[in-house]
Amino acid sequence: MTVDPRLSINQATITNADLTTALRVTAAARIPAIGLWREPVHEVGLATAAAMLADSGLRFTTHCRGGFFTMPEGPVRRASIDDNLVAIEETAALAAAGAPGSTAILVLVAGGLPKGSRDIGGARERVRDAIGELAPHAAAAGVTLAIEPLHPMYATDRCVVSTLGQALDIAADFDPDVVGATVDTFHVFWDPDVLDSIARAGREGRIATYQVCDWKTPLPADVLLGRHYPGDGVIDIGALTRAVVATGYDRDIEVEIFNADIWARPADEVVARVVEGFAQTVLPWLRSAVDSRA
Amino acid sequence: MTVDPRLSINQATITNADLTTALRVTAAARIPAIGLWREPVHEVGLATAAAMLADSGLRFTTHCRGGFFTMPEGPVRRASIDDNLVAIEETAALAAAGAPGSTAILVLVAGGLPKGSRDIGGARERVRDAIGELAPHAAAAGVTLAIEPLHPMYATDRCVVSTLGQALDIAADFDPDVVGATVDTFHVFWDPDVLDSIARAGREGRIATYQVCDWKTPLPADVLLGRHYPGDGVIDIGALTRAVVATGYDRDIEVEIFNADIWARPADEVVARVVEGFAQTVLPWLRSAVDSRA
Repeated sequence: MTVDPRLSINQATITNADLTTALRVTAAARIPAIGLWREPVHEVGLATAAAMLADSGLRFTTHCRGGFFTMPEGPVRRASIDDNLVAIEETAALAAAGAPGSTAILVLVAGGLPKGSRDIGGARERVRDAIGELAPHAAAAGVTLAIEPLHPMYATDRCVVSTLGQALDIAADFDPDVVGATVDTFHVFWDPDVLDSIARAGREGRIATYQVCDWKTPLPADVLLGRHYPGDGVIDIGALTRAVVATGYDRDIEVEIFNADIWARPADEVVARVVEGFAQTVLPWLRSAVDSRA
Repeated sequence: MTVDPRLSINQATITNADLTTALRVTAAARIPAIGLWREPVHEVGLATAAAMLADSGLRFTTHCRGGFFTMPEGPVRRASIDDNLVAIEETAALAAAGAPGSTAILVLVAGGLPKGSRDIGGARERVRDAIGELAPHAAAAGVTLAIEPLHPMYATDRCVVSTLGQALDIAADFDPDVVGATVDTFHVFWDPDVLDSIARAGREGRIATYQVCDWKTPLPADVLLGRHYPGDGVIDIGALTRAVVATGYDRDIEVEIFNADIWARPADEVVARVVEGFAQTVLPWLRSAVDSRA
């Protein structure tokens, strides 16, 4: 099986593996890059995590995740902003520790409606305000904040940013090196405007990271876990990948899957299946893009 | 409890009631209007259903539902188009049988991806084509086809029309009296563009029918059944109602709820709870709209 030189495993895909295991399994599969989650980094401590990452020889692609700042002003919001400032520093440290070509990207999931609130417009304004507070710190640290629009079924309990166009509208106030967007096939494929929004994101220099996984129905009882190996569902991952590649996007591409059945399998098996799905659904479009530039 | 003179019970809300019971319970609650579903109408036959509706003294608001025409050309598609032609005739007959002020509206749910397909763009084009085939027949029958955008979580298995803006783009090719849109709070509230899209729908004369119910998380295991009484969830129904009323919308407003727990309750109890929820969440904005015109 060919491993694409741009494939990155997002650690959530093998969420039961600790950092040691995640790095080992990824490197063993000759996958060149990994996106990390904060919790397993915290388990060993940032300095140790950075050293382990450096030893692995892997590139670092994203840190997952910051955000969750839709609440009104007060101590809880301050705690969230402070925690995001820590996440920015972690992102910079890990990107510096990763192999050359690592990217200092912090994925931001906005958060849902505060408890008892029906004011989704207000929550969205507070997302913009929070990013405005964080942006100077991200710029100083050389970190890009990557606003991730999540599928609208998560709009009230997890992420009030629901479309790529909306993420770009928020990002528009900021330097593209400091605030960009996460494009995840699972979250955006349904959008009638998605191809136009990807093209716009490219023109505006906002595609910080591109992530792939697939969608199937029926959804599982916990709709958060309805993500599948690329190719196992109904998303036209080729069409979305072509659109992203057409913008000139040349970074690593993460596979991020939340799925209880996949999480129950051994990490090395999961990583092998990711390589296979990526080879079928993403790799052909990367090669033709290279060919067309040749 | 005040019953608003514009409240309509969509029959799906009391889905276990047969037509006799649905009409009786609705009239007994002094609700002036009802939206019907095809299956219970077919159970008694169209002529009998029309006579029963006439006897009830209720207005008829919508017929639910046509659509499901995303499949490629062939016998299955032809059968769907033929069935939609029957639904158009049913709609005209029922609207004629209802009390004065009845509206001849056929709600259209587009359908999902054909089995084995990943081509959501192609499916969407076939929706447009189907409506183009049906429109002359709807015009001849005096029926409005009301394209219903469904929440994006249903995009692949139920309805490839996912936003009000997309529905309006499809409708734009047709006379507004013949092709309009269904605005349902549950399906559109999450959309960052929803208020603009409602205003546009009003300007373009496309709001065929307005339906309300509420959204709560976590979603139930069957996400189709996650609809709640107005006021029991997190949708700002007031904001959406104000936007709809501001366009000049002056028709009846349906409450349509799919919820296994609500369906398990007696129909008269459900209808009483609908009246209550409507009075709290919708009625205030209708009154102030009347006041502002006074």
